[in-house]
Amino acid sequence: MTDAAAALSTLSATLLPALERKLQDDVHRHIQPPALARMVAYHMGWEGLGAGPQARGKRVRPLLTLLTAQAAGGSWEDALPAAAAVEFVHNFSLLHDDIQDRSRLRRGRPTVWYLWGVPQAINAGDALFALAFRTLAALHTAAACWPEPPAALLARACLHLTRGQYLDLSYEGREDLDEAAYWPMVEGKTAALLETAVALGAYAAGLDAAAAQPYRDFGRALGLAFQVWDDYLGIWGDPARTGKSAASDLVARKNSLPVLYGLQRRDSAFARRWARGPITEDEAPALAARLAETGARDYTRQQAEAWTARARAALAAAPARDAQAHAALQALADRLLRRDA
Amino acid sequence: MTDAAAALSTLSATLLPALERKLQDDVHRHIQPPALARMVAYHMGWEGLGAGPQARGKRVRPLLTLLTAQAAGGSWEDALPAAAAVEFVHNFSLLHDDIQDRSRLRRGRPTVWYLWGVPQAINAGDALFALAFRTLAALHTAAACWPEPPAALLARACLHLTRGQYLDLSYEGREDLDEAAYWPMVEGKTAALLETAVALGAYAAGLDAAAAQPYRDFGRALGLAFQVWDDYLGIWGDPARTGKSAASDLVARKNSLPVLYGLQRRDSAFARRWARGPITEDEAPALAARLAETGARDYTRQQAEAWTARARAALAAAPARDAQAHAALQALADRLLRRDA
Repeated sequence: MTDAAAALSTLSATLLPALERKLQDDVHRHIQPPALARMVAYHMGWEGLGAGPQARGKRVRPLLTLLTAQAAGGSWEDALPAAAAVEFVHNFSLLHDDIQDRSRLRRGRPTVWYLWGVPQAINAGDALFALAFRTLAALHTAAACWPEPPAALLARACLHLTRGQYLDLSYEGREDLDEAAYWPMVEGKTAALLETAVALGAYAAGLDAAAAQPYRDFGRALGLAFQVWDDYLGIWGDPARTGKSAASDLVARKNSLPVLYGLQRRDSAFARRWARGPITEDEAPALAARLAETGARDYTRQQAEAWTARARAALAAAPARDAQAHAALQALADRLLRRDA
Repeated sequence: MTDAAAALSTLSATLLPALERKLQDDVHRHIQPPALARMVAYHMGWEGLGAGPQARGKRVRPLLTLLTAQAAGGSWEDALPAAAAVEFVHNFSLLHDDIQDRSRLRRGRPTVWYLWGVPQAINAGDALFALAFRTLAALHTAAACWPEPPAALLARACLHLTRGQYLDLSYEGREDLDEAAYWPMVEGKTAALLETAVALGAYAAGLDAAAAQPYRDFGRALGLAFQVWDDYLGIWGDPARTGKSAASDLVARKNSLPVLYGLQRRDSAFARRWARGPITEDEAPALAARLAETGARDYTRQQAEAWTARARAALAAAPARDAQAHAALQALADRLLRRDA
């Protein structure tokens, strides 16, 4: 284990349980009645069928907030309300996404809308959304260093989320898309909230806007690198490692970077097959090979590597007032980006 | 016209156009892409089929915020971000309500989900929700007088909304309900946001928590009085005045106060008919008469009058530093509560 990985491991052992307690406290204290809080607790992976660590996600966003606050010279404890708020926003968006996509499973468990119906699931997502702002309000801020109130930063990220989601939904059934359709979608769906997670940590630590900028750049580049790698692995990842079927993103018709890149070669074998409709699991591996022939595989890999390099460079340039926490951020980025592909 | 009505008329002529400009500016500036902003602009009554003043609602909540700020010694201009935020929250909740209730019409126009589909409508509501907090962050506050940050007050109201909505949805198909089921539902669905609309105006004007309390009491009582009158008129209102069919709330199976009151007389003719399922427009007037026999009509009227009296008393006790705006608040309450029934 490298020193950075050891730092991440040490800090995570303290931070993650404290974060989980904060999240649970806030849900059960502020969401009423208890039956509504239980729907949210189920979604968060704490209760009900299949509850447990494997049902909770990796808590990457709040961990970024806490580690950044510590790395930038503050204390992670002070940043807990910001970290919890970011995780609540992420989970609100997942809960509504599942309704929008009619997804019946998330992390191997039935989704909230599938168990409780669409109306109650919309409402449970709304409760998580409101809770994020309720929780964030408890952040004690030395107002001087904040470019705008914490709630404004988080609200901006939420507006970006809805922009990205609008674009993603609007692409369904369209065949005139190209790579330009991709970046504003993932800026909204992934990068904005990761950037905000890091920004809230940096400001909570007392950094001013100029000193916080490298951290924000790190968060944004990390989000894009993560998303592009995810898109790569969704088509060319090893099923034994990803835990999904081969080229599963093709079957799911996900608007991923390789697909949008491939579609601009309108007369390619890939684009012609894509336009003809649903793709079965059986034909997906061969179609992934057709897609690679358009140059999409090489291009996606290049983009993933370029964003990874930008993320690492931005983090290296960020003020490291606590060396252990800064090293842990590097390790977290490595863990997210060192994909076996 | 009374002096109070004249004050309301004079102030509304200035405030409402300024409010409408603020709402439109914020939607078009902060919601992206323009196609998503257009969905929201349609819902707000500014664009598309049937757009115009009759499609916009009465803007009661933001008007309460602005008039309270002025009445409490501040200036309504300073309270515009708070007023806009409250109206955005109200409209987010309407947009999601329409999906949850499968309502195809609102104010005589097709609803957003009916035109654009459920996934995009969920997202448009989320965008309005996020916009509320983005807008509120521009409120300049003399922090000393605020019991908690403005965003915390608004987030609390949103959590109350989701509580009320949870209860309302959970009552569907239940036959064991009574009056106790009613109050927490309408506290959440109606009273919390009206109280918060008034509270934000009072705090924006610089009142401390003690001085603001009568205003808050006024907002809450006004919300409850308004809702109970609305429930009364939904069953015994004159169709020529309400613009709805006779006893339309019975056909819609709304969990209104008279219905929940009547259901606790479990062996009444009303309760037995209600339990047997859907009610047609033809039989609704006779069923309204059966409901009145349970005492529900008299009781609902008493409750409406009691909450109206509490609202008026609270407003009379609130510090009136601007007599014209204070009089306008009285007139607004009278207009909302003086129903012909």
